[in-house]
Formats: sequence, structure tokens, C-alpha cells
Amino acid sequence: MKFVEKLNAAAEKNKSLVCVGLDTSPELIPAGMSVLDFNKAIIDATSDLVCVYKPNIAFYEAQGEKGWDILHQTIQHIPTNIPVIVDAKRGDIGNTADAYAKALFGQLGCDAVTASPYLGQDSLEPFLKYQEKGVIILCRTSNKGAADLQSLPCQFEGKVLPLYQIVAIKASRWNTNGNVALVIGATYPEELKIIRQAHPDLPILIPGVGAQGGDLALAMKYGIDANKRGIMINSSRQIIYASKGTDFATAARKATLTLRDAINQEIARL
Amino acid sequence: MKFVEKLNAAAEKNKSLVCVGLDTSPELIPAGMSVLDFNKAIIDATSDLVCVYKPNIAFYEAQGEKGWDILHQTIQHIPTNIPVIVDAKRGDIGNTADAYAKALFGQLGCDAVTASPYLGQDSLEPFLKYQEKGVIILCRTSNKGAADLQSLPCQFEGKVLPLYQIVAIKASRWNTNGNVALVIGATYPEELKIIRQAHPDLPILIPGVGAQGGDLALAMKYGIDANKRGIMINSSRQIIYASKGTDFATAARKATLTLRDAINQEIARL
Repeated sequence: MKFVEKLNAAAEKNKSLVCVGLDTSPELIPAGMSVLDFNKAIIDATSDLVCVYKPNIAFYEAQGEKGWDILHQTIQHIPTNIPVIVDAKRGDIGNTADAYAKALFGQLGCDAVTASPYLGQDSLEPFLKYQEKGVIILCRTSNKGAADLQSLPCQFEGKVLPLYQIVAIKASRWNTNGNVALVIGATYPEELKIIRQAHPDLPILIPGVGAQGGDLALAMKYGIDANKRGIMINSSRQIIYASKGTDFATAARKATLTLRDAINQEIARL
Repeated sequence: MKFVEKLNAAAEKNKSLVCVGLDTSPELIPAGMSVLDFNKAIIDATSDLVCVYKPNIAFYEAQGEKGWDILHQTIQHIPTNIPVIVDAKRGDIGNTADAYAKALFGQLGCDAVTASPYLGQDSLEPFLKYQEKGVIILCRTSNKGAADLQSLPCQFEGKVLPLYQIVAIKASRWNTNGNVALVIGATYPEELKIIRQAHPDLPILIPGVGAQGGDLALAMKYGIDANKRGIMINSSRQIIYASKGTDFATAARKATLTLRDAINQEIARL
């Protein structure tokens, strides 16, 4: 099954466009608990309320040798009907990108990865050729520094467009296997609106609604597609650290439910 | 000691601007040999002939859980006077970039990393703040697809410049700790010339002379700085796979010596 089909099936079954970011830091979880046990408890508490999980690999690499194993076991614990994006933001030349694809799709067994466009099409091809796997290309990231490069006005086919819009155009042309999606931060609603209008069919991963302060209502209004889906609203810290105590899993469930229902209320309004 | 000082000291001691890329694939080394033992033999055979080593982390991640440990032990085997760049091409938002910096500088203990500029200054700050560590920013990569984004003519401060030139300008402005360098492929000598002229003091990591077909003489002519240093000429496959047999280490030494001497002959000519 293709990533987008698995995503849509999970979204429909769980009536949810929530992506839970499993960005777990050992120092932020209850004392004496392992990261793996923490993740398993979060997954068990939320897997009927999400359409996708997204562990950011940096938090696992920060734990050294054992981190990769913890990430692998975390992914194996996720119910098979819920897709998993490994947020890795990879981008490297051909034979190295092959190695990354093998690591992320093969070793870790995830359903999709995030990838950087800076090195161009041939750096993404080793990921794109896995037709069943999703490749979620950084377009407009949620951070303040996004503007440094992504807002530069560039000459492209007779027009002048900000770089992130050119990335979206190129990404849609590279989408010959129907497995491309984009990352656009909720912190940039106007940019999200422009991209959704120009690319009505591309799925969009939207980080930035939680701790980063993006506006959920605007993200829904501007990001959602004609079928009232096509987006993944990511929240990491606001869900997994909803409580610092031993009731973290219950609190995470409650926070996920709150976000899911807020999203569904916005959909009902549109 | 700052990365660039360690680099220059190793370059002077070994009379070498060679960077050996430790991009080891299990299926390309002698049967029955471990990647770690292979790497150790390559290091033992070449460490008096190089100025820096550069393992690309993708090849270790492709080996799953044990890969991180192999990379860690490989780095620990490198003599302490030779700096190590982990080629990771990372780029992520603030708290995640912090986790990457902790993983690469802290856990792995490397001296420098490669990083992507697409997310802007605040994504690089968590690396740049380690004043003793090098941050080698992707500018003009060696692959064919580099042109997709990096050649786009962009409006910048009243001029129109290709994106990679703007990246170099921004990188030089972000260099408040004196720890920034650039990546420019030997496959793009004209671009290398332009960047060296505009940024006479930035160290440049130059991949692409070996298997990728870049011209060494042009890379030397256009890349070298006024002190006849300031570059790292990377070769990976042509050195570590110089022989597929059990004499691989001897062959790697010979290939490294050949490259070192070819570089030094070019320097003598300039």
C-alpha cells in the first residue's frame, strides 16, 4: 500500500489529522523510565487518535549507539495500520542517498521520510524510487530562519518567485510515483495558502502548531485540500510532555484528543 | 584547539591536503572482514598522509543499530592530531539541531560536521556555538542535481546572484566564531573560483575529484588560498577501494600517497 493510502485509511479510521511527534529526550521524561517504555506508553495511549507518528531521528541519535535500537523498537511497537514518518531531513548525493534510503526504509522500516531539496532531484531519486514510501520535501520550514534562503526572490521560467515556491513546483514535477509530500510550517499561514492553491493534490505535513505558536485555525483553513484532508498536523512537545508526571500517557491522550477534536471542529466550519 | 588550527597543523605535519572519506560499505570490503577492522586498517595505513578524515554517517546508519557503534569506534581509532569531519549534512530547527549537535560533537566526538543551509541561520546556530568545532556548510555540491536549486538566480541586496553565492555570503556573515567552512564540488571549478575570490579566508572542503570525475588541477588552481592551503581534497572510493583484495590497506596507502603528491605538485606549480 502506498504511503498516502495508508495515511488516508488511518485518518479515516481514527477520524484524525493528528501527527504525534515522538521527539523524546531522556531528561524530560519521568525519572527511572526508559525512552522506549515512555514511547510505548505514548503510542498505546494515542494510536486510536492519530493518522501518523513522526519520530525525529535527532533525538535518538543524541542517545548514541542505543538510540538507533530504541527508535527501531519504537517503530515496531506502532500498530501496522498507522504509518510512520522518520523526520530525518536527509539530503546527500546519489550513492550516499542510497545508503540513507536503505537505513531508513530498510533497517528502520518506516513508511516515509523528510528530505531536504538543496541538493536537487538526483539526491531525492534514491528515496523517490521506493514507490510505496513517502518522501516529504522541506518547502517552508516552521523556524524563524526559514526566510534566510526560502524567501529569496528567484528567477524561474520567466517569473520571480520565492525559493520555497520553486521548491514546491519542482517537487510536484518530481512526483512521478505519486509519493511526494511537502513540509510547510503552521507559523507561515500565507505561504501555506499559496502552496495549497498552487498544488491542490500534494499532502502537506504541518509542524509548528504547538510549542512553536502556529495558528491551528489558519493552518486548517489554508492547508486542507478539496476532500477535507491532505494535511498532517504535527504536535510533539505539547502532547508527549503534556504532563511531566507519571500520568504522562493519560495527559498525552487528553492532549491528542483535544487537538484532534479542535481540528475536526475547524473542518466542520470550513 | 579550533578545528581550523587542528586541520592546519595536521596538513603541515603530513604535508597533505588529502581528506580520506571513510564511506565503508560492508558488501565492498574483503569477505569475512568487519567494517571496523577495515576502517582501522585504512586509518593505520594512511594517517601520516592526510590532513583530515571524513566518514559519511549514512554508510554507518545503513548498518542499523551497530553502525553508530562502529562509527564511534572508528573515530576513536583516528590519531588525536588528525581532525574528523562527520559528513552528516544536517539541518533542522532549534531544539532538534541541538540534539544533532549533541549527538555528533558530544556522543561521537568529531571535530566538524557538514550542514545544510536550507533552514537558515537559526538551524546552524546550535552547531556554530561550539567554537572549537567546525561547521562546513553545503554551498555548491558535487552532484549533477546541484543546479536544480543552487544555480537559481536570486535577488539579494540589489544584485542578482546564483543561490550558492548567496549561501556563501550568508555563511561568511554567520562566521562570528571563526569556525565556518564551505563544501564546493571539484566538479564545478568555475563556481569554486568565484567563491574563493569572494571569500579568500574560508576553508573549503572539495569532494568530487575521484569517482565523480572532478579535475584536480583546476580544483587546486581555483580553490587554494593565499597561504597555499585552506582546502581539503576529499577522496573516498578511489582510496578505500583501491584494491578489492586483502592488500586493500597497502593499496589505500599507495592511492593516498599518489593523491597527496599530485596535490603537492600542483601547489609547487602555482
